[in-house]
Amino acid sequence: MSPPEHKAVLYTFWRSSCAWRVRLGLQLKGIPYETKSINLLKEENRTAEYKKIQPFGAVPAFIDNIGNGNIMIESIAILEYLDETRPDKFPLLPKDPADRQAVRALTLAIAMDIQPVASMRVLKYVGQDKQDEWARHFMTVGFQAVESMLEKTAGKYAFGDSITMADLALVPQYTNGLRAGLDMSVYSILSRINNTLEQVEEFKAAHPTSQPDYPADV
Amino acid sequence: MSPPEHKAVLYTFWRSSCAWRVRLGLQLKGIPYETKSINLLKEENRTAEYKKIQPFGAVPAFIDNIGNGNIMIESIAILEYLDETRPDKFPLLPKDPADRQAVRALTLAIAMDIQPVASMRVLKYVGQDKQDEWARHFMTVGFQAVESMLEKTAGKYAFGDSITMADLALVPQYTNGLRAGLDMSVYSILSRINNTLEQVEEFKAAHPTSQPDYPADV
Repeated sequence: MSPPEHKAVLYTFWRSSCAWRVRLGLQLKGIPYETKSINLLKEENRTAEYKKIQPFGAVPAFIDNIGNGNIMIESIAILEYLDETRPDKFPLLPKDPADRQAVRALTLAIAMDIQPVASMRVLKYVGQDKQDEWARHFMTVGFQAVESMLEKTAGKYAFGDSITMADLALVPQYTNGLRAGLDMSVYSILSRINNTLEQVEEFKAAHPTSQPDYPADV
Repeated sequence: MSPPEHKAVLYTFWRSSCAWRVRLGLQLKGIPYETKSINLLKEENRTAEYKKIQPFGAVPAFIDNIGNGNIMIESIAILEYLDETRPDKFPLLPKDPADRQAVRALTLAIAMDIQPVASMRVLKYVGQDKQDEWARHFMTVGFQAVESMLEKTAGKYAFGDSITMADLALVPQYTNGLRAGLDMSVYSILSRINNTLEQVEEFKAAHPTSQPDYPADV
């Protein structure tokens, strides 16, 4: 097979935790991609043009450099796709079905039960005077639950001693917790795993501060 | 292989849309199960005992009648597991990776971007005076986006002409929309698919009104 003529494309924003998950998947799978920055703070995601790409007006959206060239959305569905199309390099799920279930449950506990409820669009609707309390409430409930799940599953990482999809959800949400002003050190397993992962090369490369659209004045 | 000695177990509540998704999976896969009803309206999900089963205090939770007997949580992760362990009967995902991505994107658009933001626990926190407006706002944004996704993917069902995981997310959320007082008929593809699926035997069996814990006085 000759190398593809074009790079994959990721519609992303440095601060988005959902885009960050996919950046991690692309780094671990070793897929080069072109960054198309959609500035959520400037509401570049609210244009009619961008909503043709991502109908919720959210990031990420992804176009692979192999296959039919369709635009893909929903971060976890993109990670599943990357794992199915590149199964050999850095598998994101274990082999046993019950283990896979446990990894997906950890992933979705973060991606369905924490992140969406305290996302930028929800906090904006809640309003400036109440959004800090809101974010802290729902993130605290969520992190407590995830920490108790990790008591049963964690090794070096969220599930055993290999990096899985759950770690790709964990790290960005941990930063969301810090941004909301939570004392994350009370979650000792989450904190240990996050700190370990922050040292991994691919995680450094996917970090918000490493992105081409990271602003100079933050 | 001799038949398993015990039935699978589902912790469920008739009104929960997340439990409904798994009931649909169990019906389509033909897996007999025992219903353990957790009444969310009576806060039976808030007990310390139940939180040992499901740390968020949510339904569903599932114990299979094959395998290691572990408690599984997160509805979509359970559906993925059911599909991986019973791949031949009523596959919930197509075979092509890009098609699988599209089905999962539809599923998660509903399960991550609509349902959690207007769930019972969030609406309770929003408060009685504001929860109707809240639910209508976020569901309207979400259904508009999903309807535009369906313009590209729908056949008889959400993705082409076979029932997929996306349909298992669609039907319960459609009912949530009706409960929130939305005029769902404005979403013509969603409505057509929902009405078609309501006639399918397995969907009738998984419906809230068919459940053993459905109250007589509703």
